[in-house]
Amino acid sequence: MTANVFPPRLAELLEALKFLPGVGPRSAERMVLHMFTRQPEGARRLSLSLAEALEAVCLCPRCGMLADGGLCVICRSAGRDPGQLCVVETPSDLAAVEASGAYRGLFFVLAGRLSPLDGIGPEELGLDRLEKRLEENVVKELILATSATVEGEATAAYLAQMAQRAGIRATRIAQGVPLGGELSYVDAGTLSSALAQRRSIE
Amino acid sequence: MTANVFPPRLAELLEALKFLPGVGPRSAERMVLHMFTRQPEGARRLSLSLAEALEAVCLCPRCGMLADGGLCVICRSAGRDPGQLCVVETPSDLAAVEASGAYRGLFFVLAGRLSPLDGIGPEELGLDRLEKRLEENVVKELILATSATVEGEATAAYLAQMAQRAGIRATRIAQGVPLGGELSYVDAGTLSSALAQRRSIE
Repeated sequence: MTANVFPPRLAELLEALKFLPGVGPRSAERMVLHMFTRQPEGARRLSLSLAEALEAVCLCPRCGMLADGGLCVICRSAGRDPGQLCVVETPSDLAAVEASGAYRGLFFVLAGRLSPLDGIGPEELGLDRLEKRLEENVVKELILATSATVEGEATAAYLAQMAQRAGIRATRIAQGVPLGGELSYVDAGTLSSALAQRRSIE
Repeated sequence: MTANVFPPRLAELLEALKFLPGVGPRSAERMVLHMFTRQPEGARRLSLSLAEALEAVCLCPRCGMLADGGLCVICRSAGRDPGQLCVVETPSDLAAVEASGAYRGLFFVLAGRLSPLDGIGPEELGLDRLEKRLEENVVKELILATSATVEGEATAAYLAQMAQRAGIRATRIAQGVPLGGELSYVDAGTLSSALAQRRSIE
């Protein structure tokens, strides 16, 4: 609506900003005005780091996580248990598991999840790389942390079979009531999983 | 919290993104993951337009609005009334007035507002340029659209004197109840202005 008061190059920048998640016309305008009227150094720093990141960032050849040349931070770090391999769907999911602080093994990031209707089969997910990795005989447990959706479950089932063929134990993260969750607000499907996966109190 | 799973260049980009208004650690992370896992073309386009804008964007030498080399969009456009000059504090304020669609004159963007305590006097605001412009004898009305704050009012009073010296009519935008505003929610100061500036119904 107000973009017509901006010179063409800023109008183009406004458009380009809108592809970012959570950025609409109003916030793009606010960002542009902030960058060009208050914080030119900040804008220059952003421009530089974005250009450098685009130049350098690639996927880790071992696990598929974002990395800048060579292995990712986790594959490179000593002191992680190579016997545990946690399979997640995306780099965001890896970040979420890592933020929990409850896992010290390695990861394998799929390039999405099995979705035959969209033409995404085992090859598209990089499962051949995973299969080779399992054959190295280092991984003792394959932890399936794909999402709790139909495709995520199908992917987990497929991976469990793959682990079985390689003679490796496969586990699936638990489904149940979230921490602090009040039962009356939890949906029926989650509650049904929580009941089915109930455990003995020792 | 989760930034440690990102390679150094992405961690630097995360930091650089946080200077944008409304972007915190979580949304910066979401933006980075979106850029590098889903939308590499979008990120490349953003990087390019940001670099180009930083290269080209400057302030319009005539009015102080953002422009890319030479005059801004409004100073360049034919069909605006050069007899009216609206003074605003920032490019955002110009965009807001322009978005109202109620003004077809020209603008003058101050570099802020008078604030003696912060060492911002008439020179810092570019008022010498405004004075020269008023001496050109083209402007018939100086519309003071500075903000309704103490500094904004002081700036408006100063500008009104400047207009008087140049023999030009100065007007101030009205203060009152906003459109759709319910009286019980309007603050006392605004209501007092609205009463003081009441007009006859013809």
